[in-house]
Amino acid sequence: MPFADRLQNVETSAIRELFKLLGKPGIISFAGGFPDPSLFDVEGIRLASEAVLRDAPGPVLQYGATEGYGPAREQIARFMAAKGMPVAPEGLIVTTGSQQALDLIGKTMVSPGDKVIVEAPTFLATIQCFRLYGAEVIGAPIDADGVQVEALECLIEEHRPKLVYLVPSFGNPSGAMLSLERRRRVLEIAARTRTLVVEDDPYGELYFGAAPPPTLLALSAEVPGSRDWLAYCGSFSKILSPGLRVGWLAAPAALLANATMCKQFADAHTSNLTQAIAAQYLALDRMGAALDRVRQVYAARARVMAEQLRAVLGDAVAFDAPQGGMFFWARLAGGRDAGAFAQRAIEKLVAFVPGAPFYAQQPDHSTLRLSFATADAAKIEEGIARLGQAL
Amino acid sequence: MPFADRLQNVETSAIRELFKLLGKPGIISFAGGFPDPSLFDVEGIRLASEAVLRDAPGPVLQYGATEGYGPAREQIARFMAAKGMPVAPEGLIVTTGSQQALDLIGKTMVSPGDKVIVEAPTFLATIQCFRLYGAEVIGAPIDADGVQVEALECLIEEHRPKLVYLVPSFGNPSGAMLSLERRRRVLEIAARTRTLVVEDDPYGELYFGAAPPPTLLALSAEVPGSRDWLAYCGSFSKILSPGLRVGWLAAPAALLANATMCKQFADAHTSNLTQAIAAQYLALDRMGAALDRVRQVYAARARVMAEQLRAVLGDAVAFDAPQGGMFFWARLAGGRDAGAFAQRAIEKLVAFVPGAPFYAQQPDHSTLRLSFATADAAKIEEGIARLGQAL
Repeated sequence: MPFADRLQNVETSAIRELFKLLGKPGIISFAGGFPDPSLFDVEGIRLASEAVLRDAPGPVLQYGATEGYGPAREQIARFMAAKGMPVAPEGLIVTTGSQQALDLIGKTMVSPGDKVIVEAPTFLATIQCFRLYGAEVIGAPIDADGVQVEALECLIEEHRPKLVYLVPSFGNPSGAMLSLERRRRVLEIAARTRTLVVEDDPYGELYFGAAPPPTLLALSAEVPGSRDWLAYCGSFSKILSPGLRVGWLAAPAALLANATMCKQFADAHTSNLTQAIAAQYLALDRMGAALDRVRQVYAARARVMAEQLRAVLGDAVAFDAPQGGMFFWARLAGGRDAGAFAQRAIEKLVAFVPGAPFYAQQPDHSTLRLSFATADAAKIEEGIARLGQAL
Repeated sequence: MPFADRLQNVETSAIRELFKLLGKPGIISFAGGFPDPSLFDVEGIRLASEAVLRDAPGPVLQYGATEGYGPAREQIARFMAAKGMPVAPEGLIVTTGSQQALDLIGKTMVSPGDKVIVEAPTFLATIQCFRLYGAEVIGAPIDADGVQVEALECLIEEHRPKLVYLVPSFGNPSGAMLSLERRRRVLEIAARTRTLVVEDDPYGELYFGAAPPPTLLALSAEVPGSRDWLAYCGSFSKILSPGLRVGWLAAPAALLANATMCKQFADAHTSNLTQAIAAQYLALDRMGAALDRVRQVYAARARVMAEQLRAVLGDAVAFDAPQGGMFFWARLAGGRDAGAFAQRAIEKLVAFVPGAPFYAQQPDHSTLRLSFATADAAKIEEGIARLGQAL
């Protein structure tokens, strides 16, 4: 069968091959990107589900507006306002997870051959998503404070990209947090160079100590002209439930209108039922307590992982302990290959993801990603001990 | 903002403009494409929802496989087998409504400039969906027995399309039913010319008298080689609930694998919760009774609409009364313009959709679509009487 040319722009993921090995009995996995399901507020979601099927079965089971279910847009707008982002319900659309928000941005913005700048490393599915629309994806260097803004500015001048994609708070895989100063600089650069910046923010609420600096969207009020060049992707996947597939996109009106048109022909609309459940859940006012618990548990696990990595692996691995999110990003000393290490680790019944696939270009093969979200302290200690044996 | 070139291939729908007028108080609408929400089996969906959130909250609220939630794939495979289509659970993927199945087929198959053949007229969102991937969409003539196979064969030879899209049973907007003989011919043509045929089947269960002939997929067992060139899109939207956004795609393995890859970067997966609800609903064994009721109600409404159209409009309008589905497709006598008629009808507080936008090329401006799904008999009588006044 003669498939579309665009499929040639993506390769089968190396990670997929690794994931096939994860079924081995007794394995301790730091490889996943999933939140811990034992932290889901099942009772709250059950209450919300019962309420919407009791009070509004017609609307939640019927076709709905492509832009989103009214009460969901309203509750999400409130949720954003509480985080310093005043957005009207009409200023956002609900998407089938924030992955769809990225897909709609790709479809709306990217013509074959267009350039897109991402962090190096960044979320793998973003790279592939934009490549399917024909983008040439370019990596901008990062450190523990997020993307290096001088380098970003040079890359923008050089490549004139259609957009820049950033995960400013606790990105996957880097765990890095873009500093307040750099956030301001990113907005200035966006406004000056008239370059769309896409802010993906699935992890911003998962902070361990102080909250991260305000989002780019929140800060845009302080930087004239920047709001016109800023799209924001939000998600309930890491803070409520990924299985609902409810995310959202807030963006300038013209972009939002085109994304809505593309969504109409992509999946008509996101499930009204899951949108209504998310909206009702927010109205129940349980999110704060649920998030407190998630932050506490993840913070404790991250602490254990940091201590154990230092104790067991010592100088063999370098990392900056994350201040939030779900991931450690680490680098093996002496340029050792993390792919080969991952194979040996699997033999010792512990799994992680080598970092190379997270780079759009010029992968650093000595990097690796460890998730601490789903293993408890005892598993983390045992798993890192096994890593020590594998090393 | 510099948007992607592909947006230039679609126009803002003329129908959208009309829909803005539908809010007028007192209007009777035959314009929609929605099923009647009063026929939803709310109790069954509620039972299914409670069961899955009680018995499997972890899996239904967590991330899931891009291919679909296991129990959903199994139940859908059983549902298809009962309709004469033996498909393994691994032979289908669950999609976010069947609209997403079309979108994934477009993404997987269509390069800019490729040709796609559809029925003239056909589902508007299909035309736009494929155009967004750069397709040149070509219309094949139809009559009450569905697509005219000799003309289709000539068009395939002439244009060598990437795919042919058909709604064999009670299509939107035509209401036509592809005859058994033509179904066999379509399969022979597909196998001989090695052309992918996409069978979209959202309405097949909504028959009023006898069931329609077997689907192309069911018949493909009789036509050597045809199964390799056949993709089938199914949907719960018209038979259970559109708000769940659960559809599916059954296709040859290579196409299914590529569509799955595209889906991974489009929305990661369809909501596990709504997939689980659909699966549990099927397991409850209520679908048969619910469908009987829907068929009965829609059949009665279609009968009233046919009688009233004949009584009130007489020779001014020609149509073939549909044997299933949700739509009448009609043609004004003397080449009168259905767009102008729609405007006058709105003034008389009755709405329908002019047929022109449903044509990929060379629209017939005297055609119109009337839905009988959501208005009861009294509303249908009154609405058609108003149409008579407008005429």
